[in-house]
Amino acid sequence: MAVAERAERGSGDRKAVEAVIAKLAQKFGNRLVTSRAVCEQHANTVTWIDNQPPDAVVCPQSTEDVQEVVRLCAAARVPVIAFGTGTSLEGQVNAPRGGISLDFRDMNRVLAVHAEDLDCVVEPGITRKQLNEHLRDQGVFFPIDPGADASLGGMAATRCSGTNAVRYGTMKDNVLALKVVLANGEVMTTGRRAKKSSAGYDLTRLLVGSEGTLGIITRLTLRLSGIPEAIASGVCPFPSVEAACQATILTIQSGIPVARIELLDGPQVHACNLYSKLSLPEQPVLFVEFHGTDAGVAEQSERFGEIAKELGGGPFDWAVHAEDRTRLWQARHDAYWAARALRPGAQAVASDVCVPISRLADCVRETQRDIEESGLVAPILGHVGDGNFHLSLMVDLADADEVVRAKSLLERLVERALAMDGTCTGEHGVGQGKMKYLKAEHGEPALAAMRALKRALDPLDILNPGKIVALGEAAHC
Amino acid sequence: MAVAERAERGSGDRKAVEAVIAKLAQKFGNRLVTSRAVCEQHANTVTWIDNQPPDAVVCPQSTEDVQEVVRLCAAARVPVIAFGTGTSLEGQVNAPRGGISLDFRDMNRVLAVHAEDLDCVVEPGITRKQLNEHLRDQGVFFPIDPGADASLGGMAATRCSGTNAVRYGTMKDNVLALKVVLANGEVMTTGRRAKKSSAGYDLTRLLVGSEGTLGIITRLTLRLSGIPEAIASGVCPFPSVEAACQATILTIQSGIPVARIELLDGPQVHACNLYSKLSLPEQPVLFVEFHGTDAGVAEQSERFGEIAKELGGGPFDWAVHAEDRTRLWQARHDAYWAARALRPGAQAVASDVCVPISRLADCVRETQRDIEESGLVAPILGHVGDGNFHLSLMVDLADADEVVRAKSLLERLVERALAMDGTCTGEHGVGQGKMKYLKAEHGEPALAAMRALKRALDPLDILNPGKIVALGEAAHC
Repeated sequence: MAVAERAERGSGDRKAVEAVIAKLAQKFGNRLVTSRAVCEQHANTVTWIDNQPPDAVVCPQSTEDVQEVVRLCAAARVPVIAFGTGTSLEGQVNAPRGGISLDFRDMNRVLAVHAEDLDCVVEPGITRKQLNEHLRDQGVFFPIDPGADASLGGMAATRCSGTNAVRYGTMKDNVLALKVVLANGEVMTTGRRAKKSSAGYDLTRLLVGSEGTLGIITRLTLRLSGIPEAIASGVCPFPSVEAACQATILTIQSGIPVARIELLDGPQVHACNLYSKLSLPEQPVLFVEFHGTDAGVAEQSERFGEIAKELGGGPFDWAVHAEDRTRLWQARHDAYWAARALRPGAQAVASDVCVPISRLADCVRETQRDIEESGLVAPILGHVGDGNFHLSLMVDLADADEVVRAKSLLERLVERALAMDGTCTGEHGVGQGKMKYLKAEHGEPALAAMRALKRALDPLDILNPGKIVALGEAAHC
Repeated sequence: MAVAERAERGSGDRKAVEAVIAKLAQKFGNRLVTSRAVCEQHANTVTWIDNQPPDAVVCPQSTEDVQEVVRLCAAARVPVIAFGTGTSLEGQVNAPRGGISLDFRDMNRVLAVHAEDLDCVVEPGITRKQLNEHLRDQGVFFPIDPGADASLGGMAATRCSGTNAVRYGTMKDNVLALKVVLANGEVMTTGRRAKKSSAGYDLTRLLVGSEGTLGIITRLTLRLSGIPEAIASGVCPFPSVEAACQATILTIQSGIPVARIELLDGPQVHACNLYSKLSLPEQPVLFVEFHGTDAGVAEQSERFGEIAKELGGGPFDWAVHAEDRTRLWQARHDAYWAARALRPGAQAVASDVCVPISRLADCVRETQRDIEESGLVAPILGHVGDGNFHLSLMVDLADADEVVRAKSLLERLVERALAMDGTCTGEHGVGQGKMKYLKAEHGEPALAAMRALKRALDPLDILNPGKIVALGEAAHC
């Protein structure tokens, strides 16, 4: 697979790309950009994965524009890579074989809001914050919140989630339908606005998480939630990671509909204290949030406090005032930046795994030991209600030995998660970075099925090639 | 498609089937049955769709048994049809080209319960009631409840839901992973026990709802829910279908986490009064249920009562006593039998559609008018929180004119739902009965994509052929 990712293009490919770019220039004018700097900005820039720029960037303004680009590229067998905000973490936007990056910045409209039906229809370039800004006065919101202010198209493509997933689900649960440009340039709709359907294969869920390799999303119908009447948040320290995880398990098992439950380990709390001027005890803490009625959140908070106390945690202080909550969650959202501030100049490499919740404490503890023994800086935070956690690994890329140690640490992290019946990625996706783990996770028959699906929908391998599954030469037969 | 469904088999096919049956007899002994009566019981028996029996029935006891059957059938190009309890409503278990029915009655074990992780692992033949019986003492339950006591394999295969879906989701939300025998006889696992994953294409969701056409489920990892501390149920009459639907919309929009909210129209209430000896007012009613803490369900019930009152509904009486609740929901679950009792001797044809909830009242009212004008008996009940409702159409099959009127009524029902941005089936699936609507619902590109997926995973078209999408001759090239 490494070969496919870095394959050099022959001069035939080069000519094909140039011919496509010439045609695109006629059609798109200054919405086509080929400058090296812009192309590099449209490849991976956020982790240690190499920057592999496309040959050109086009900003479509309609589904028809996307069709035109895809048709031209299909005819010339030139790759097409969809681009939202470029915040994906596993090299999803890289162009290992060059090609055309489709930047959806101009397709960012809200096309319809159906508040009664709790759904809306949007273009893929809108970001989650823009969408919620738009929805705010209508009593509804879109709950999925990855760390970055990502685009909805990218969020669907990577099947992302975030802090609210324990209550509201992930993108797979919150996308009702998609409009998609297929590899042959045709437009497919994957569903309608009905809340559920059993009318055939679930094309929506097949596209969600497919990272632009099966089709290019040009419209999304999203499920919305009512803004809760009351919200209560709080922070609760625990004597150990085990106690914090056990409190999480009991909270969920006892049916407390917690909206967010986030673990920060000691090093992460330390980083947040420095960065966000907090004075939290530097031990494992849970940030929690409850949504409901006034009486409901009060009851949920009290019950959580009792569970925490039984496990030696506390004191649990909870805040219903918006400003206190905002300060708290801002610190949580800044945790990544706080981790980076621990080692200025280092490259931050964020990786995530997800395990059954009963194995979470083991997985986090073993990982902490591994970090310590590896002599690395890697605060941990987790969406623990889902059994999902992240390392923010700070690596000095100039230090070859450190890079080796960091890479082995991440290998072991994935092995550990898989050994616990978990997954190599809970929410960041596969991209290029996690392709090598898919066989160990899914087995060869499932991987073969994924390749067969890719071939069925993209026989020429032009849609974001070299991501998730590599078809290699077979695809060109 | 009608042709493919009823295609006569040539003598070559006949010989191939006989050769497979001879080999199966050696291996499976008396777990292979070829009697006409048993074969007919393994084809559609529940609606007016023709009974198209398989050539033989095999009862596998392991995944390896299933592999052996599939390999033999693949080599001879003989169809394989998975069979759970035979309660599907659109001819899903029919064998239009003959073949081998795999009856999973012997594969009905619970293999593991992980109460801490809120999941369990089961074989496909276990029914939902058997599973919940098994789970009862462990504080957890499996919430999906189609009308019949269906098998979990069949429930996953048809992407079914039921009364709890408004709160707990459908099978797509409650299957974590599957073990599947593919058309080539290999075994694929589609996921692990992590609560979420973004590690590649969502094979789990692709298989859920595929009705045995892409692979045969031999094991399921299911998501469980904690048994709620308190449950409150009640019945609330409304002056009109519109008022009942509006109450439903407001309930959901205001964030009341209603667990069940079921509409029965006047004729359905009449049928239930007769059948279950109730004395409900014969007008539209909502059956509702709330899950939570004692204080929570009290608050939810009160709020719902206020909403109902504002819309002219009520009185809303709610019951927390288990026996009252049981009586109520037994009547709801017997609604189908109650409808049948309205016209003894008639064939019951249950059909379902699902629309955006804001269109539900329109859709139900127009359908009621249509039933009236058609001179037919067809009580309506609906999982209205999801915008999903059912007709129980009572048809005298001996009356050719009535059959024509009934068929046209169902055609118009689907057209109406599609015109309202809904789906031709919310939870019954496609089978043979709803294949003809898929093009109108999804459009040709989506249908072509479905056929491409089918071809990719089952190139010989041996897995439940003639359901969902028909490959026809092309598949045999």
